[in-house]
Amino acid sequence: MTTTITIDECAAWLSERDRFLIITHRRPDGDTLGSAAALASALRAAGKTAYAVNNAETTARYLPFIEKFHAPDGFVPETIVAVDTASPELFPDAVSKLIAPADIELAIDHHPSNTLYAKRTLCDPSRASCGEIIFDVISRLGELGPDAVSALYIAVATDTGCFSYDNTDAGAFFTASRLASLGADIAGLNRLLFRSRTRARVAIEGMIYSDMQFLFDGRAAVVAITNAMMKSSGADEDDMENIAALPVSIQGVLAGATIRELRAGGCKVSVRAAPGVDANGICARFGGGGHTAAAGFTSKLSPEELRPQIISVLEEFIAR
Amino acid sequence: MTTTITIDECAAWLSERDRFLIITHRRPDGDTLGSAAALASALRAAGKTAYAVNNAETTARYLPFIEKFHAPDGFVPETIVAVDTASPELFPDAVSKLIAPADIELAIDHHPSNTLYAKRTLCDPSRASCGEIIFDVISRLGELGPDAVSALYIAVATDTGCFSYDNTDAGAFFTASRLASLGADIAGLNRLLFRSRTRARVAIEGMIYSDMQFLFDGRAAVVAITNAMMKSSGADEDDMENIAALPVSIQGVLAGATIRELRAGGCKVSVRAAPGVDANGICARFGGGGHTAAAGFTSKLSPEELRPQIISVLEEFIAR
Repeated sequence: MTTTITIDECAAWLSERDRFLIITHRRPDGDTLGSAAALASALRAAGKTAYAVNNAETTARYLPFIEKFHAPDGFVPETIVAVDTASPELFPDAVSKLIAPADIELAIDHHPSNTLYAKRTLCDPSRASCGEIIFDVISRLGELGPDAVSALYIAVATDTGCFSYDNTDAGAFFTASRLASLGADIAGLNRLLFRSRTRARVAIEGMIYSDMQFLFDGRAAVVAITNAMMKSSGADEDDMENIAALPVSIQGVLAGATIRELRAGGCKVSVRAAPGVDANGICARFGGGGHTAAAGFTSKLSPEELRPQIISVLEEFIAR
Repeated sequence: MTTTITIDECAAWLSERDRFLIITHRRPDGDTLGSAAALASALRAAGKTAYAVNNAETTARYLPFIEKFHAPDGFVPETIVAVDTASPELFPDAVSKLIAPADIELAIDHHPSNTLYAKRTLCDPSRASCGEIIFDVISRLGELGPDAVSALYIAVATDTGCFSYDNTDAGAFFTASRLASLGADIAGLNRLLFRSRTRARVAIEGMIYSDMQFLFDGRAAVVAITNAMMKSSGADEDDMENIAALPVSIQGVLAGATIRELRAGGCKVSVRAAPGVDANGICARFGGGGHTAAAGFTSKLSPEELRPQIISVLEEFIAR
């Protein structure tokens, strides 16, 4: 049974503790890593020993911001804190092996699905990012240094898609405004996070745009990304971030299916839909599921075997 | 000789005047149109008669926000205000025919290049958008209604490229935060402005990515957009917004040249450069110019005649 705590209680409790290990979630994004780096930085500034878990799945883009906080081998923590992590199933493998959910002293999160696994929980699902909650907590511990300020900007900016996603709100803008005032290098971080693409990403996007098939007066779009396209573009998984959102970002497209050929054979399909079309229903026809706006399924068929079947189901759901 | 006024003085002066006509600049963007719509809306809420010029170049995207403020034929203004317009040369043709620079009672602007043509000038070049200055002024006139709030979000968000450009700062975020608190439909406006692309834009981007030539270990990129590409993609000028920024948004690219074939023959070339490479110097070689980061020139040569010449100059400037 967790105890729900407030921002003030959280700050006061952190002040009383020491030897922190901060846990980030699997497939770590800017919000979990930025939250961890900022919290570790602020705890150190308050005179504590604080490390973040060395999350093996951290991508090159975020490593420079979190690396300096990585826990050394053999570090024995007294206080384990999880950030932006809705449930223990989302702990990285290395963490799951060593740490039981019952060992988590505190979880700071913004996911409505948080399972309240920690002894204490500070969770505010109304916030666009976990970083905003961390900002409020560590602002009570003292002045924020440059590492904390940059890390929190990364958290807020990435979880809102550079303030373009539907979760962007007054609080996200306000935190960003405070971080800019505190000296965050907004221009440099934006360039790094949002205004630079790899050549491989550009190449695969070019292929996707050329290959995209529009159907039913442009209300549906289907694209297949084959292993051959991946190879010739040089794209890796890092380059494929948010690629399934491309079809439905085109004007008039109500449902978009992105077929990814798998190396081992078969396909993974992501369906995105505009309000009024049920992506979950579409994917359920193929044994998959998800949410109304975004769902998926896997299949043993090849992209070209699958394509006509998907088109037929799309037609039915769009006609509704 | 202009009189420089403060935000408070501007608000007080506006309160004393009536029968406003608000002028926007040529090739109007979200900042000039949003500023005009918000100012007109606030002046009307304060009991005034206020219209914006019917700018013939207004694109379909912005029309719904400004149209309701368009001046009717025969409207005789007493107070002419220009927004986001650095000089009288930037007035739309229809305005230049009827209105002399000496008739402009007030200019509200954020361009450092403002020529101080108006009788009164409120210009703050430290602001990322003109909309932020308008926000400060009209907040002193009374409560902001939904039209003003939406229009100002369009102004701030477009002039900062959805908070991604180098001009994004604490003030832009703070204004956005206030506008969100006042009820701006951030998600809806973001979807309209930043998260939807036309099929033609997607088609031309696909062609650009496929055609892009990388040189000198990927430090330069050159692309030519021919009339044939424009025709087969169906792209119009609206679809080409910010297209010249694509090459230099790719990792490692220090200078990017975008060659646009002109319908009448010849080419228009845009060069964008990262810090350390002088786009202005590159374009000066071809009789053009601009800024260090962005410059351009026109030529009577065909794209394929021009390409090797540009590559040779790019090589020289990148080697510096």
